[in-house]
Amino acid sequence: MKFEDIPTPAVYRLSFYLRQLEAFQKGDKHTISSKQLGDALGYTDAQVRKDLAYFGQFGHPGIGYRVEELISQLRKILGTDKVWNVLLVGAGNLGRALMAYHGFLRKGFRLAAVFDADPSKVGQEFGELKIESMDRLAAVAGEEKIKLAIMSVPADAAQAVADKLVAAGIRGIMNFAPVSVSVPADVSVQGVDLAVQLEQLSFKMSLAGAEVQMESGK
Amino acid sequence: MKFEDIPTPAVYRLSFYLRQLEAFQKGDKHTISSKQLGDALGYTDAQVRKDLAYFGQFGHPGIGYRVEELISQLRKILGTDKVWNVLLVGAGNLGRALMAYHGFLRKGFRLAAVFDADPSKVGQEFGELKIESMDRLAAVAGEEKIKLAIMSVPADAAQAVADKLVAAGIRGIMNFAPVSVSVPADVSVQGVDLAVQLEQLSFKMSLAGAEVQMESGK
Repeated sequence: MKFEDIPTPAVYRLSFYLRQLEAFQKGDKHTISSKQLGDALGYTDAQVRKDLAYFGQFGHPGIGYRVEELISQLRKILGTDKVWNVLLVGAGNLGRALMAYHGFLRKGFRLAAVFDADPSKVGQEFGELKIESMDRLAAVAGEEKIKLAIMSVPADAAQAVADKLVAAGIRGIMNFAPVSVSVPADVSVQGVDLAVQLEQLSFKMSLAGAEVQMESGK
Repeated sequence: MKFEDIPTPAVYRLSFYLRQLEAFQKGDKHTISSKQLGDALGYTDAQVRKDLAYFGQFGHPGIGYRVEELISQLRKILGTDKVWNVLLVGAGNLGRALMAYHGFLRKGFRLAAVFDADPSKVGQEFGELKIESMDRLAAVAGEEKIKLAIMSVPADAAQAVADKLVAAGIRGIMNFAPVSVSVPADVSVQGVDLAVQLEQLSFKMSLAGAEVQMESGK
């Protein structure tokens, strides 16, 4: 099977399995069954086995999964067995929240550079990071071999920034702007639309009422 | 079909369809085909028809979809045909970014109150919002009939805050803390783990290399 044929939700669940395995590891648990892993996340054991089977054969008969081993295999699959250098464009409130977020490095991502179009922000320091001007983007991305970028810029700046990132050799973009951007086919974009997340919640919260209506409309 | 039986990814795509339809509406487009809607988002027309069919019969023979009509139907399904009052706990950088984010109201969500555990932040004003102390949470949620909450708090505070939200009558929580929280079965939690999004990108970016390995390993 080609990785491209694996359903996107299964790849998402891989991240959640990894997160849960890391929690087991912290709790000094060294082997687990698919049922234990599923129970912790609200999935059936069959779902866990099916998801993992897309990526390889990880279990050991009579033992289950070895936690450390499965963690390192999942990290390899997700590409986080090495540390990715990431650059950030946009040092507004959200950008600063991302700069202060210590979870990235633990997950294999290192914020290596920050850029902003606002001259009054250029030169400001945040820990080891100094905000640089947009003119420096291509040079820094090249020097530090950065392939991943996070955009936390206003909607009306998003496409122009995406174009600059692509021109600078960036191949993966996490886009927080509430708008989609066009990129060449060999560049991946992961949009993070916060309103979409809220809509999913309001959908779930509307479920009870909707079902009553559907039932009574039979 | 019960709404609970609809695959979660189809509900996600509903948000993207809605977003694209709103863009068509802005562009003064009043009818569209499933192919046009799919093309704009990178889905096949069959996918579009299948996804929408979970929720109802929306097309008109020989016309396609009426944009305004489909928008209002999707909003109704997603529960955003009315405005939800939302409260926010945690007025750090991320919380302030969320307060400054103007996309919510347009999508049917109104930030009605903000709380923080830090006494030095209580009383600070952001536009029409004033940060309130955590002691006020239950009272304000009750007065304003708030059922949805956003948590942008540190990992070690997340469970205690979630417990307070549930006790205050909150039924949907968007969790930005990089940790899962336990809630009763009738409360929905939408976790937003930024590292998961980055992992999905690094997976896609690792695809090319991985496929070469798989091919040569045949």
